[in-house]
Amino acid sequence: MKVKNRLLNFNDKIIYQDDDSFLFSLDSVLLANFVSIRLSDKKIIDLCSGNAPIPMLLSFRTKASIYGVEIQKEIYNMGLESILENGMDKQITFINDDVNNLFNYDYCEKFDVVVCNPPYFKYQKGSLINNNDKKTIARHEVLVKLEDIIMVSKYLLKTGGTFALVHRPSRFMEILFLMKKYNIEPKRVRFVYPKKDKEANMVLIEGVKNGKSDMKVLPPLIVYDEAGNYDLYIKKMFGSEDNVAE
Amino acid sequence: MKVKNRLLNFNDKIIYQDDDSFLFSLDSVLLANFVSIRLSDKKIIDLCSGNAPIPMLLSFRTKASIYGVEIQKEIYNMGLESILENGMDKQITFINDDVNNLFNYDYCEKFDVVVCNPPYFKYQKGSLINNNDKKTIARHEVLVKLEDIIMVSKYLLKTGGTFALVHRPSRFMEILFLMKKYNIEPKRVRFVYPKKDKEANMVLIEGVKNGKSDMKVLPPLIVYDEAGNYDLYIKKMFGSEDNVAE
Repeated sequence: MKVKNRLLNFNDKIIYQDDDSFLFSLDSVLLANFVSIRLSDKKIIDLCSGNAPIPMLLSFRTKASIYGVEIQKEIYNMGLESILENGMDKQITFINDDVNNLFNYDYCEKFDVVVCNPPYFKYQKGSLINNNDKKTIARHEVLVKLEDIIMVSKYLLKTGGTFALVHRPSRFMEILFLMKKYNIEPKRVRFVYPKKDKEANMVLIEGVKNGKSDMKVLPPLIVYDEAGNYDLYIKKMFGSEDNVAE
Repeated sequence: MKVKNRLLNFNDKIIYQDDDSFLFSLDSVLLANFVSIRLSDKKIIDLCSGNAPIPMLLSFRTKASIYGVEIQKEIYNMGLESILENGMDKQITFINDDVNNLFNYDYCEKFDVVVCNPPYFKYQKGSLINNNDKKTIARHEVLVKLEDIIMVSKYLLKTGGTFALVHRPSRFMEILFLMKKYNIEPKRVRFVYPKKDKEANMVLIEGVKNGKSDMKVLPPLIVYDEAGNYDLYIKKMFGSEDNVAE
């Protein structure tokens, strides 16, 4: 079924989505809203793109060229279809490859912004999860690890370029250490709390390559209000509650 | 003027305070509430105690022996007076010394809990601030630095002991790095936001000496509600709004 959805906060533009092949995940929508984009930014890349929600959402915020990279062929194909269906293929270059293959001179220090909604969970060989499963690969660090992502981000970014990530708070300290290790200075952090009285279950973090040390913790992002409804900020971001996939 | 105040959440006990010599600072009250205290804890120490708000507040939560350390004689004397006035001198040992003098075999790995509300600001020699001023010494790292505090905390703590600190979010990353450096594993973090739509201006952080890596970000602590009144949690903590010193 094809649904036409208005995303109110993206300059009132419209995105067409197919319920089966393109789902808005809260993580991706929050990240696409959170990342700082300057008018002067010319090239943006999204790593671990999945079916391309972030490149598509970013296209509403910028005229820059947007690249997306997804390793899984089947998921990549769904993303590509959405991009074509929405006529976004002039702005978005969608690549079916491993993030670890981006160490390529053509990409070296060519990007103003790198964003990533990576697999969240550590993967241990011999664990019971099926490492060929699509969802497992998207959620667990089977094919790419956090350090790989931050290492390649450093390679891709110009000095002064922006790196933005969404992840679990349990990995927050590791993220900070790795960003420091690869000279991406953490600058803006925003914790996402499901409710006012619940622990944070997501963290948005942005850094600047070779930037100065100066970290701010932005206002809390509380997903549901006390009545159990989506917070106004979240509602505006999605346009409609029907668009939100948990 | 002497004021009698009920602190509702401290088991309905009463604290006597003198408006001139004993002020509740939000930072100290939040830290005294935040730190985890086990029934089995026998010895607790508060570093950079000022006029002893934290040792006094902790005395409502535990029967453990509580030590406080303050270097500035005048401020120390005010704290001592409050402790005596409240008849807390059996439980609280108040020491007038430099935190850097605690590397003493009698104290080595003897404490279950170390808490600290340290000077927040970096001090640069030759800056315009007066380094003999009481308030300057309390607020700036003139006599003690963050690393000194964490180093001595490691020395004082038993394995498995708890370290808790209140600080500014701009120093958060440095705190995490130093805790890691001295094998105090960060476990619980709580950001304090003045209002729902404001950046965090305080962070509470707790770690465990030689603990396992597993950090949680607790629910946001939002000081003022949308009408500009103190949040219920804060009100309960202070007993009365009149008790709060900004």
